[in-house]
Amino acid sequence: VKTEIINVGNEVLLGSILNENARFLSERLASIGFELLGHRVVGDQGQNIREAFQEACKRGQLIIFTGGLGATLDDLTREVVASQLELPLEKNSFWEEQLEAIYSKVGIELDEKRKKQALIPEGCKLIPNNNGTAPGIIIEKEEKLIILLPGPPEEVKPMVEDSVLPYLKGKSPWNVIKTLVLKVIGLGEATLEDRIRDLIDIEGNPRVVLMAQSTETHIYITVKGMNKDDVDSILRDWEGKVKEKIGSCLYGVNEETLEGVVARLLFEGNYTVSTAESCTGGLLADKLTDISGSSNYFLQGIVCYSNEAKMELLHVPQEVLSSVGAVSEETARAMVENIRSSSSSHFSLSTTGYAGPSDDPDEPAGLVYIGLGTPQGTFCRKFNFWGSRRSVKEQAAVSALNLLRLYLEGHLK
Amino acid sequence: VKTEIINVGNEVLLGSILNENARFLSERLASIGFELLGHRVVGDQGQNIREAFQEACKRGQLIIFTGGLGATLDDLTREVVASQLELPLEKNSFWEEQLEAIYSKVGIELDEKRKKQALIPEGCKLIPNNNGTAPGIIIEKEEKLIILLPGPPEEVKPMVEDSVLPYLKGKSPWNVIKTLVLKVIGLGEATLEDRIRDLIDIEGNPRVVLMAQSTETHIYITVKGMNKDDVDSILRDWEGKVKEKIGSCLYGVNEETLEGVVARLLFEGNYTVSTAESCTGGLLADKLTDISGSSNYFLQGIVCYSNEAKMELLHVPQEVLSSVGAVSEETARAMVENIRSSSSSHFSLSTTGYAGPSDDPDEPAGLVYIGLGTPQGTFCRKFNFWGSRRSVKEQAAVSALNLLRLYLEGHLK
Repeated sequence: VKTEIINVGNEVLLGSILNENARFLSERLASIGFELLGHRVVGDQGQNIREAFQEACKRGQLIIFTGGLGATLDDLTREVVASQLELPLEKNSFWEEQLEAIYSKVGIELDEKRKKQALIPEGCKLIPNNNGTAPGIIIEKEEKLIILLPGPPEEVKPMVEDSVLPYLKGKSPWNVIKTLVLKVIGLGEATLEDRIRDLIDIEGNPRVVLMAQSTETHIYITVKGMNKDDVDSILRDWEGKVKEKIGSCLYGVNEETLEGVVARLLFEGNYTVSTAESCTGGLLADKLTDISGSSNYFLQGIVCYSNEAKMELLHVPQEVLSSVGAVSEETARAMVENIRSSSSSHFSLSTTGYAGPSDDPDEPAGLVYIGLGTPQGTFCRKFNFWGSRRSVKEQAAVSALNLLRLYLEGHLK
Repeated sequence: VKTEIINVGNEVLLGSILNENARFLSERLASIGFELLGHRVVGDQGQNIREAFQEACKRGQLIIFTGGLGATLDDLTREVVASQLELPLEKNSFWEEQLEAIYSKVGIELDEKRKKQALIPEGCKLIPNNNGTAPGIIIEKEEKLIILLPGPPEEVKPMVEDSVLPYLKGKSPWNVIKTLVLKVIGLGEATLEDRIRDLIDIEGNPRVVLMAQSTETHIYITVKGMNKDDVDSILRDWEGKVKEKIGSCLYGVNEETLEGVVARLLFEGNYTVSTAESCTGGLLADKLTDISGSSNYFLQGIVCYSNEAKMELLHVPQEVLSSVGAVSEETARAMVENIRSSSSSHFSLSTTGYAGPSDDPDEPAGLVYIGLGTPQGTFCRKFNFWGSRRSVKEQAAVSALNLLRLYLEGHLK
């Protein structure tokens, strides 16, 4: 199925945000065997949307729009597509009720302008949106398939996974198309590529591609086949081949996140954890509390930026701070041992380092010590991260989570 | 000048990398007043490049390509564009010498295949590339301006800054083009649009457009003129008009961020701040410590998820927790007052709420109380946020920062 993606929106067109939707959709569509002809970005004006749609119709059988479904006057995707296809817009009562519920909750009146988000072209299918006010729309007309999705990537992603992909898979000549995502941490993309080079194949079946994310790399394995058992067995086989080459750097599959895997391991053991953060400044606690139910395992976190706070809240000895300094294995160790005992948690994590930016050779940005407190003793690791202040914080927080994961999975001894 | 950007390359088309070039070029071109009609991504095949070029020529006067200038067989941008414009390719001796120097340095023979990177269409201008082997090319023909650039963003960026932008500025009928970004918080995009509807003009001069970001909205005002003083005075005038309509919801301009503005206000007053977080789980401290030098104002942060931690670390009275509960104005107040006095900071912030997800009507996801401790007393605010767990955490942390900003700017009494 020849496919074009059209992203509508001045934010993307004028370069204030990256086109995350195009990347995500391209990758997901390619993974189920749709042939991407191109993606394009146009501004919010009706004329631009119309021209892009007409050109895409000449070539593509499947056309996917993102953006332009909002409640403001310059949100015109719905109107332009409906008028080009000569389909009248009609009220969808189910979605109007959703809008009423959402707006009454935040105390804003559902006026006529906002009600337009409940309009969909006659006879078309609505895709529910659990994270925003704009539903998606599936239009089938004259052998063309047109799908309208909202703009924000955090709304697009679940809608694609939950509704669009299952729907499109039903249109495929294969009975079964399955993608397994293997998630890798602690190996750069280039190193990972070297390790599994002979498995990578971007055009084959299985199709195996690498996708670098900010602090990890994902391996997408897609298998097309005629029956489920065969496809599953091929996927299991390939998962094994990858695992053989990268071992404990493979932390999870599919929807799993590093935070989620750590949370599951803590839940399973009925364990608790506490944090003592310096250079990550709260980001580690933030990640540990991103999981629903985290109050069951996360006891407390302390963010101690100053030496005073380290001494007062975490009893890091003054001698340690004045001899080896705050950025040292000794400080990381004192922090993690003190928070573990004062909070009576099974595990504890600490971070101390230079987040940067700084050109001071005595305080090299990216140097970070991470401590892990366990019932079997304390582990410390030294890292040299590279990048912006934000990136160093991210890498440090993720490395701390990963250290706890490695321990809980028995890889750390 | 109507402009289209065409990115050639399977990596972008198939979603394995983000389209960083499109974002960068869009942003830089818009800033000097070029009117972006669209950007599009096509695969490496000659037919796709040809179709994209023909369609772009119908609308655009300036067409910028990135990608497809490499030395491999599937790099076809140069060849396709030259053949469409009926311009023969000829050897550029200057670049052939560069190639000889580069390849001899890395010890690779400059064979015929690699020599094709020194070919440029007859009569056209070469743009040197200091970071790669593919030069850029500027083609002027029949009132069209076509610019070919390589694919890697680290090569594209310096070429654009050093050669392309200076060249294009010379083509602009305006002497001065400036953009002012006004950053707004605490008003949704639709509400902001209602308030400043008569100022919005996406095609005028000034050009005024709205861009929704995740927790804020930006207003872009671009003015084109013949002299700097006039342009500056128009921008000041429009900034005043917007300010009149939205008052203290305007928190900053251009590169300023909410964290940065709060940090500046704290630096200026030589103030310190501490945090006591429940539902934001460390995210508020994370944001406060994203600014370089934050150790000067950020004293300490406590993340107390459990009632026990709230009592133990922050002395929230058991009676409060058992009578009105942890998610209450009283708890937010006790948390913020205790962290302020125990840390001896000038200011303190607290958050307590239900981050969700949860369908329990007794624990409505998104209900958050935020406390602000100041030398003049304590302020508490109740919010009803909407969205995913992550989104509720983000909105709560940003609202806490904003509360402190409003106080420091004298808007809270």
